[in-house]
Amino acid sequence: MGKRMIMNAFDMNGAMHNSHGLWKHPDSERHRYTELSYWAEMARLLERGKFDALFLADVVGIYDVYKQSREPAIRDAVQVPLNDPALIVPAMAAVTEHLSFAVTVTTTYEHPYAHARRFTTLDHLTNGRIAWNIVTSYLPNAALNHGLAKMIRHDDRYELADEFLEVAYKLWEGSWEEGAVVRDAGRGVYTEPGKVHQIDHEGRFFRVPGPHLSEPSPQRTPVLYQAGSSDRGRDFAAKHAECVFVGGNSKASIKSAIDDIRNKAERLGRDPQSIKMLTGLNAIVGSTRAEAENKLKAYAALWSGEAALAQFGGSSGYDLSAYAPDEYLAYKATDHGQSRAAQFTKQVQNRLTVREVIERIGTLDSRQGRLLTGTPADIADAMQEQLEETGLDGFNLAHLITPGSLREFVDHVVPELQRRGIYQKDYEPGTMREKLFGSGNRLLPEHHPASQYRRALS
Amino acid sequence: MGKRMIMNAFDMNGAMHNSHGLWKHPDSERHRYTELSYWAEMARLLERGKFDALFLADVVGIYDVYKQSREPAIRDAVQVPLNDPALIVPAMAAVTEHLSFAVTVTTTYEHPYAHARRFTTLDHLTNGRIAWNIVTSYLPNAALNHGLAKMIRHDDRYELADEFLEVAYKLWEGSWEEGAVVRDAGRGVYTEPGKVHQIDHEGRFFRVPGPHLSEPSPQRTPVLYQAGSSDRGRDFAAKHAECVFVGGNSKASIKSAIDDIRNKAERLGRDPQSIKMLTGLNAIVGSTRAEAENKLKAYAALWSGEAALAQFGGSSGYDLSAYAPDEYLAYKATDHGQSRAAQFTKQVQNRLTVREVIERIGTLDSRQGRLLTGTPADIADAMQEQLEETGLDGFNLAHLITPGSLREFVDHVVPELQRRGIYQKDYEPGTMREKLFGSGNRLLPEHHPASQYRRALS
Repeated sequence: MGKRMIMNAFDMNGAMHNSHGLWKHPDSERHRYTELSYWAEMARLLERGKFDALFLADVVGIYDVYKQSREPAIRDAVQVPLNDPALIVPAMAAVTEHLSFAVTVTTTYEHPYAHARRFTTLDHLTNGRIAWNIVTSYLPNAALNHGLAKMIRHDDRYELADEFLEVAYKLWEGSWEEGAVVRDAGRGVYTEPGKVHQIDHEGRFFRVPGPHLSEPSPQRTPVLYQAGSSDRGRDFAAKHAECVFVGGNSKASIKSAIDDIRNKAERLGRDPQSIKMLTGLNAIVGSTRAEAENKLKAYAALWSGEAALAQFGGSSGYDLSAYAPDEYLAYKATDHGQSRAAQFTKQVQNRLTVREVIERIGTLDSRQGRLLTGTPADIADAMQEQLEETGLDGFNLAHLITPGSLREFVDHVVPELQRRGIYQKDYEPGTMREKLFGSGNRLLPEHHPASQYRRALS
Repeated sequence: MGKRMIMNAFDMNGAMHNSHGLWKHPDSERHRYTELSYWAEMARLLERGKFDALFLADVVGIYDVYKQSREPAIRDAVQVPLNDPALIVPAMAAVTEHLSFAVTVTTTYEHPYAHARRFTTLDHLTNGRIAWNIVTSYLPNAALNHGLAKMIRHDDRYELADEFLEVAYKLWEGSWEEGAVVRDAGRGVYTEPGKVHQIDHEGRFFRVPGPHLSEPSPQRTPVLYQAGSSDRGRDFAAKHAECVFVGGNSKASIKSAIDDIRNKAERLGRDPQSIKMLTGLNAIVGSTRAEAENKLKAYAALWSGEAALAQFGGSSGYDLSAYAPDEYLAYKATDHGQSRAAQFTKQVQNRLTVREVIERIGTLDSRQGRLLTGTPADIADAMQEQLEETGLDGFNLAHLITPGSLREFVDHVVPELQRRGIYQKDYEPGTMREKLFGSGNRLLPEHHPASQYRRALS
């Protein structure tokens, strides 16, 4: 097998992720998201399909920018109701052996000391099958709910995130030496006190003496995911991330983002090829193209444009209800973030009217590039082409209906990809990091900035 | 069956809880605490024994008061290494049907908005089998690790906890009306926006507009546990708690604490008998008394006095290494808390020398009252007597070695208690609150202060 394709399922622990309005489809089982059995079945399905991981997105607030109201989001379940993503992982880990889990946690509203223990715990319980998707949170409502009068500005959130990572690295990499836990009954020593160190972190945002409360887990630092698409976000990804979720509506824009992040990483002394690049994907599979197109039509009929605009409003900061339809959209910097949604407004500014933007965002079949419709061979062709032309390493597969969209992908597209020799037929042994980067790569490599904290502590 | 005995297992997600030094026992499997299978086996064992719940204690710092050093605690695994308690619950819930889980979370270092979502998520995933043990954290190291220059004073921590609960009640009880989620595909309404409310909390410590991110879970507010033993702590328990973990080294002191909390609750308009009172228990079971005594001797030989003193130091604020052995211990108020350990110093002040105190704390067989050793009938007698003479409703059963201590209790003491008609032979249906308080009691009762937030919001 040449370069194998990495495959994640892209989901959220809530009533709906990004398949706007499709909770209405009779085959959707999504309302079962509150049940452990739903997630156990999902995990087994993905492991049967040899997926690398289930990627769980998260937000910690309501989408209330569009129409300056939370009503559109609540009515159509736009990422609300939404439960905590970390808590479904242990039950899924218990019924799988190889599937990994990427869990989103914000650095803006959590504390690194408690956070570090949560992820060490997850890494222990999953035997090293855990990743952390680092976000800085774009929703204004999230800031308010955490007691802030207004959002921390975008670039300042990244300053804070940088220091949060520094604290976490010190706890994960520098506090407990390898071999600290000896369980020597003869000497009465469970842990060698001399091998557990304070971290004595004192920074601009955090003061954490340590030591870490948990003993080292298989990977110590979880595999680090990030999805920064702004310039500052890409700097952050280039410094920290092992897997980057890259946006872009065309192969050219994806390639440009990938090249930029790899260049930045190289300038920071990291191996640029060691960063795995993933992009979003939706697939509608039919045994014939006509069958797939008919499914698309059925989905499009249930699609909710209002939900899509609510999601766009929260993630970009643009309330598209506040513009005249014939107005050309002009880019403005907002503190909401430089998300894919915000990037999109940059690309179309002064070129599309608000009416055209709304049509583009609010309809399902306008999602070109990221929505593949056709036979398994069609879909495999398009995926393969994307990988070859962009430098991508793989995909985050979203769903239209769940678990149906994932099941048809596992049953029909995965075998096609396997026949082509670009998709794993069996899992590699070891932790998530070893599965992604090869045997022996249980820990972060020496060229990663976290490694400096390993021996620097006394 | 008359008044049935409530039974919890009392544990922690770490290498050791309170069985100081007994990790050295060859039958201890405790080092497997990092494995999901360990906890799944534990949950199945407890469900076989018809336990009400597994009670998971927690601390978020190191015990470093004794000898002004963290070394004794680290060497003997005194609640370090320690992992997050909430994350083992979903995997245990998946392999049980009735067992409940009481999870400790501090109000001092978490944020109520994120916390409320975590517990709603747990309540969903467990089908309403979740309790929250509310603590305010007594370890100075925990304060430092969360960026505080010094601990928040004991009584101020309770002020903060009171407001934390108010925010949480508003989110759990007042944000989403019953029937808000309709999933009406015809009208395209997943949730009725008019039935999801902001909470607009503005207080001394928190400002949280809401709404809650999660839809209501079976119990809405988890069953509330508390273990306050100071006067302020008892006020807090009387106001909020549904189950109180009562300290005391004698039946008289337990009865006095129970009477005090019930009186306080009554003055606040609550039904005093609706608060379930539990106390700690250790049991060493033999088919004969001699066999049990021999087990005790084996445990005592492995017991670690240093570990016990390290634990006492952190939980009381008294560094017993800093006194002359012949000095009489004098009570002093500390910010560490009014824990059972601190209470103990109050009881023995000016009566025992420090040497005597150290002997009392540091040896296993001095733990009279809370350590029962004998045949199943002996242990059942003593438990029954405690319940009859104190007003207790049940016990938190700790272990000496695990899972051995629990297994012998389940296999031998539980059947004895069942024969006596004071222990359930089968679980009641429903949520944890219904199992504790009877059918129909899915939600907090009207006389609980949380109920005022139900309709007060617009």
